[in-house]
Amino acid sequence: MQTIHAAADAIKRKEITPTQLVEQCLTAIERWEKHVHAWVFVDADYARGEAKRLEADLARGFYRGPLHGMPIGVKDIYDVYDWPTACGSKLWANSISRQDAAVVASLREAGAIFLGKTVTTQYASFDPPVTKNPWNLAHTPGGSSSGSAAAVATGMCLAALGSQTGGSITRPASYCGIAGCKPTYGLLPLDGIMPLAHSMDHPGPMAHNATDLAILLRGMCDGWAPNDSINFVEKAAVPVSRPRFGRLRQLFDENADDTTRDMMDEIVHRFAEDGASVEEFALPAAFSDVVRRHRIVMAVEAAQYHEPRFRRHPEDYSPRISQLLKEGLDCPASEYARTKQHQQELTQAMGLSIYGDLVLLCPATTCPAPLADTTGDPAFNSPWSYTGLPTISLQTGYFVDGLPLAIQLVAGPNREDVLFSTAAWCEKRLAATPLQPPYPEK
Amino acid sequence: MQTIHAAADAIKRKEITPTQLVEQCLTAIERWEKHVHAWVFVDADYARGEAKRLEADLARGFYRGPLHGMPIGVKDIYDVYDWPTACGSKLWANSISRQDAAVVASLREAGAIFLGKTVTTQYASFDPPVTKNPWNLAHTPGGSSSGSAAAVATGMCLAALGSQTGGSITRPASYCGIAGCKPTYGLLPLDGIMPLAHSMDHPGPMAHNATDLAILLRGMCDGWAPNDSINFVEKAAVPVSRPRFGRLRQLFDENADDTTRDMMDEIVHRFAEDGASVEEFALPAAFSDVVRRHRIVMAVEAAQYHEPRFRRHPEDYSPRISQLLKEGLDCPASEYARTKQHQQELTQAMGLSIYGDLVLLCPATTCPAPLADTTGDPAFNSPWSYTGLPTISLQTGYFVDGLPLAIQLVAGPNREDVLFSTAAWCEKRLAATPLQPPYPEK
Repeated sequence: MQTIHAAADAIKRKEITPTQLVEQCLTAIERWEKHVHAWVFVDADYARGEAKRLEADLARGFYRGPLHGMPIGVKDIYDVYDWPTACGSKLWANSISRQDAAVVASLREAGAIFLGKTVTTQYASFDPPVTKNPWNLAHTPGGSSSGSAAAVATGMCLAALGSQTGGSITRPASYCGIAGCKPTYGLLPLDGIMPLAHSMDHPGPMAHNATDLAILLRGMCDGWAPNDSINFVEKAAVPVSRPRFGRLRQLFDENADDTTRDMMDEIVHRFAEDGASVEEFALPAAFSDVVRRHRIVMAVEAAQYHEPRFRRHPEDYSPRISQLLKEGLDCPASEYARTKQHQQELTQAMGLSIYGDLVLLCPATTCPAPLADTTGDPAFNSPWSYTGLPTISLQTGYFVDGLPLAIQLVAGPNREDVLFSTAAWCEKRLAATPLQPPYPEK
Repeated sequence: MQTIHAAADAIKRKEITPTQLVEQCLTAIERWEKHVHAWVFVDADYARGEAKRLEADLARGFYRGPLHGMPIGVKDIYDVYDWPTACGSKLWANSISRQDAAVVASLREAGAIFLGKTVTTQYASFDPPVTKNPWNLAHTPGGSSSGSAAAVATGMCLAALGSQTGGSITRPASYCGIAGCKPTYGLLPLDGIMPLAHSMDHPGPMAHNATDLAILLRGMCDGWAPNDSINFVEKAAVPVSRPRFGRLRQLFDENADDTTRDMMDEIVHRFAEDGASVEEFALPAAFSDVVRRHRIVMAVEAAQYHEPRFRRHPEDYSPRISQLLKEGLDCPASEYARTKQHQQELTQAMGLSIYGDLVLLCPATTCPAPLADTTGDPAFNSPWSYTGLPTISLQTGYFVDGLPLAIQLVAGPNREDVLFSTAAWCEKRLAATPLQPPYPEK
């Protein structure tokens, strides 16, 4: 399994070409896609053409940076010029985009090659998708960025774009044994991305490790980031000398299953032995209400966007998103207002209490990937979507019945610098190389 | 034929309801559409639903302003939530929009009712559309805002959205006997509108007179205009006391046909008799090159946008847009750079020479609507698209063989205030009421 970081080195040393990278991915797709169903479509002709174009750039000495020639997958809620953006909707199946989404345009400029569109749960919500978990086809890959996670895990692309409103990056990344980053709310522009809940929608990268996440995030925000002097790539390459962790309990201890809690204890122990400072982090009292309140914001804001379509085309909405929209339509404005106030106050309180280079630490999910009739529980992720704090999830090398477990790091607002250098430190203590799911036996 | 101004008065006095306005338009569609083919589609159910919703607003005392309940047409290059934006492309026929274009969202907020999408020439270029001129079905309605012009002229909607890169608002408005406004470049946001040539693309309103243009333009730029203290509606209602015209010769005298030149002479004579100051306006020498240079900018910028699609789907491009794109692809960058310099210098020179409340005056088109194998000559309009100066075209009451003739006013950059108050003055001296095309005989 190849990382972007390694592939970029090989490109620079002329040991591999963009065409070879694309062909490697197409071979993996040939092998895996029939089991995993990660793609809405793959546009091999287009990808091969882009590879040729980017090779011509290299031949005349124009190197665009570490994403030059990297084949990536794009979640099917992002607009890509001349490709449809279906978002899991039947009525949108032929909705061809006239423009790239802002972050897609930025990645294109950086030399990324888009292989195709990856499966999203319908409207980036909770209805189980066709995609299967490559570690065990009976289990969910998580949602909503289901296809992106499964495609990266199986080497069908080197990295992929996901998005998160509840736990839609962290959860599938963790269930599939890869890494995910949900940056600070507002770091990346939402233009050209289907909204689910505007105040909590986060675009973000999914890849094999923190370095690759940094390269992709940098490519997504070039030209957009409020402070583009923050070089995530450099930060990710240089581990912090002595990380400072705030361990999260309460909600997290209560909801994690036994194996996940044991994994967390072991990792904390190992990190402390390796010189990290680990303190208990006391969550604000308002935190206890966050999962319920998150649901209210998501329901009302999703209904704000979908209402006219939902009334006209109810047949184009699956059961769980329909239920969410009904909740949103029935919610009194005063309840939403109270919740927005709670969201604002909690966001402020969290921002104040995660001072300096502190990074919060918790399991990325409550348990390993459950069976495929659900997309899993976002309880450990939605608090960070709700408060906009940046997160990275990392595979740990721990497994339960062949399914991987992951940890989650959370930094203060706009502290992607601390987040990435701490993630780099952690990675050296965890699984060193990308995990590879076993090929399903006949 | 009803104006928005009159209909808005009737709504306020409760003499008419939004539902009645919608039904009037649907009746006109029933009567005219089979001859004129102005619509890509009409969404009667949606429009009726919106009318009910806006009536409920009125019933609880929420009046949104003069666009409240006004049925309008939307050129099929603007995104409207839940409707396809085909731009005349077969491949985009089912490209349903997930968001309103920025100006569409603004009009929706102002209470406008969208009746459907109006026919555009393919990609807003020059290939003749299916739409016919309601004054003579053998003739062109002009392009590219063909459907918008024909629909307003026949009362199938009260006003419509057009767009202009060459002469695509002014020309069809003039050929169809209605009024058009191309505002200053940059006044209105282009988000959610198909690009043709980014540095010359202008959204703009098409309606029966200057007052209606002002109401619509105001509705399009609320929340967007750099200086929203400019109240176009008030300006349009108050004619300037003594207008100052700069009469345009050269290009305009040379290219106008005899009847159009005679019409212009008569009108200038009449305006002077009524107290207007009319001076000859000496165009900068660089102006003589503007039509050729405009074509270069349009070709290169259109190719910049369309190139990847044009290479992949050449079958989705009609002959004239194909020719334009080939020109753009073949144009050396140095030639485009020279032209952009020319565009910048001419724009600066024009801005300096149209000082104070001066308004330039010329025919809106070289001749009345030609036969339908062309969309007509944009030579009198493209200079203002090229330099970004705001224009209004007005029907005059002059006809040639049953086809209407129009004049064009051009103001200094961002001088929509002067433009509208001068247009109001002119209108009192020209046809006082909307012109009505005779119904085609069997």
